[in-house]
Amino acid sequence: MTRTRSTFPSPIVETFGWLKGIEHPADRPLMLVSQAAPVAPPPKELREALADLVLTNDAIHLYGPVLGLSELRAELAEQCSTRYGGAITQAQVAITSGCNQAFAAAVATLTDQGDEVILPTPWYFNHKMWLDMSGVSAVPLPVQADMLPDPEQAARRITGRTRAIVLVTPNNPTGAEYPAPLLRAFYDLAKSRGIKLIVDETYRDFDSRDGAPHDLFGDPDWDQTLLHLYSFSKAYRLTGHRVGALVTSADLLSEVEKFLDTVTICPTQTGQQAALWGMRNLSKWLEGERAEILARRAAIGNGFPVLAERGWALRGLGAYFAYFEHPFDMPSDQLAKSMVHLASILALPATMFTPPGDSHGARHLRIAFANLDQDGIAVFFDRLAALPA
Amino acid sequence: MTRTRSTFPSPIVETFGWLKGIEHPADRPLMLVSQAAPVAPPPKELREALADLVLTNDAIHLYGPVLGLSELRAELAEQCSTRYGGAITQAQVAITSGCNQAFAAAVATLTDQGDEVILPTPWYFNHKMWLDMSGVSAVPLPVQADMLPDPEQAARRITGRTRAIVLVTPNNPTGAEYPAPLLRAFYDLAKSRGIKLIVDETYRDFDSRDGAPHDLFGDPDWDQTLLHLYSFSKAYRLTGHRVGALVTSADLLSEVEKFLDTVTICPTQTGQQAALWGMRNLSKWLEGERAEILARRAAIGNGFPVLAERGWALRGLGAYFAYFEHPFDMPSDQLAKSMVHLASILALPATMFTPPGDSHGARHLRIAFANLDQDGIAVFFDRLAALPA
Repeated sequence: MTRTRSTFPSPIVETFGWLKGIEHPADRPLMLVSQAAPVAPPPKELREALADLVLTNDAIHLYGPVLGLSELRAELAEQCSTRYGGAITQAQVAITSGCNQAFAAAVATLTDQGDEVILPTPWYFNHKMWLDMSGVSAVPLPVQADMLPDPEQAARRITGRTRAIVLVTPNNPTGAEYPAPLLRAFYDLAKSRGIKLIVDETYRDFDSRDGAPHDLFGDPDWDQTLLHLYSFSKAYRLTGHRVGALVTSADLLSEVEKFLDTVTICPTQTGQQAALWGMRNLSKWLEGERAEILARRAAIGNGFPVLAERGWALRGLGAYFAYFEHPFDMPSDQLAKSMVHLASILALPATMFTPPGDSHGARHLRIAFANLDQDGIAVFFDRLAALPA
Repeated sequence: MTRTRSTFPSPIVETFGWLKGIEHPADRPLMLVSQAAPVAPPPKELREALADLVLTNDAIHLYGPVLGLSELRAELAEQCSTRYGGAITQAQVAITSGCNQAFAAAVATLTDQGDEVILPTPWYFNHKMWLDMSGVSAVPLPVQADMLPDPEQAARRITGRTRAIVLVTPNNPTGAEYPAPLLRAFYDLAKSRGIKLIVDETYRDFDSRDGAPHDLFGDPDWDQTLLHLYSFSKAYRLTGHRVGALVTSADLLSEVEKFLDTVTICPTQTGQQAALWGMRNLSKWLEGERAEILARRAAIGNGFPVLAERGWALRGLGAYFAYFEHPFDMPSDQLAKSMVHLASILALPATMFTPPGDSHGARHLRIAFANLDQDGIAVFFDRLAALPA
């Protein structure tokens, strides 16, 4: 056994493999709802600013600090403080090479071989993969019928080896937006048991709720319990630049620094400059992006009855994601494969987000709808409704 | 214990910390010979090409393949085939977020908790740090008086848990250029014992020898034993872009893909495009870079007698590095700290590259001279010669 052999292949890579050699009819081009990623570049103004820096800023080509550019750390600290209503300082912010790396660094800092981390299911597959590769048991915490995990059930899963609970809100893959009191309950649980709460808020900029999504940063001791993860990729369309963040205590970040130094030395400087420019100049534009995603989300909800008539159920909806339960007498991975052939749609089966036997996996699909405009959503529903019963 | 607590802080980070609060005399500005990195940006032509892509190439801002851009993989495969005289294909090349990540991915793919990897000492500290964090024992293999590791001694250290031997050539930190027959002997040893040979050739573009540095790629089965690591950072001055490579079998790369997908999803696209442009257009320029580094290396050798008179010894010289043995009655970490105060020189003590008690550590310094021009090298020797006995 090796670290990598202890886990499964990347679902994104595996499902792209399903497309090989398949021709789609000219009037039915392939529709990708498998990966949660913008397919358009960032706004022209950001690209112009970045191109100018590439030409004129020598430092952009050279090593920077392991924990990231101080300007970007300070900017995120300030914007988080405003958004969440807390006092977050630059020393509590690390910039990472994407949000996956923020999670990897957090786990390397908190755990050792044989430890346990509580992970609600459905889970984000890369979280499960990293725990596997780290020799850490991912203890499944199945969500309830409302797609939310229950803190009391989590409490019963805590053992002497438990180091953290991981939450993702808005959730990937279900889209669920966790209520602030639920986050508070998990935070109180973690704090009282002396473990950490990791909250991945990659999709926070597309939350349908106005105001702070939780009040955890208001606790003066928040950094003794909370690790907040963020991604600049979705908000500013910078997926190709690999920039994320990890917000926690400065002490813990000095441990994180060992991991980041060893795995990548520093985050890419161009990506950090792009994220900084975005944070400083694109807040209005980002509001428009959010409004568009919320309109698409509404279109998924409004269009769903045509599938409901055919026995489908909408189990979750939010951020970039809809979580569908299908009516067919087959496991969801088999359905997802046949959808490529029959409907020219690539979606991820929820078997890729759940352990075997999970009640929210075998009959479910994750639909990453963010790249479908209103017309695309209409076509999407037409294609699914036409699937043979 | 956690993964990160099982290892030491980054020497680069720690030694930068020594500089805090220290004022240097106006006529004696700080001289940094601690980090092996270019301090100038890549040539204007590369920056212009990259700026143009930032403006016009939408894909540069979006996710790319986990294992890297196919054009860059193909280009490196072709250039490696030419340089080493072998048949290396695109499918045998993965692009990584820097060469440290290539090493991390290799280890995650080859080892599990409790395994062993043979590491010549002095070692590259990030290799040791990653093995620590991976729960893998770094089995020290002290180099001989000629600064080269001995394959027979390595053979005696192989156990049932040994998964690989790691070599760095030209070496960091000693500068030693490993002779081709030595690499062949290590390769034959690894092959015969069914383990892997990892060869980190980050500094290969500054090797003083013309022609192929080894013939390992000429073995038709090379990819069953060899993992070759490379960095685009030094050759094209792209340290801030984080682009490296791992060359081995396609089968092993499908395991590597799990690690890379989980830790960073994909290498930065701008960095890959910069590396690709460099490989296609800067071979002449790179020859000039190499000539300059070789001239600086010669200046170190020519200037050394002034220190030899004072009891210093030059133990290694090559690539970006000189390896000095000092004459003072103090451990090298204490000398390195006092050099900041007394000579305004920041160099890494070899205690950071060796386990306690290593005969090439306690009295040695790594001098990363690549950023010192001829005048700078003269000043450097003056300052060291003036250190109080």
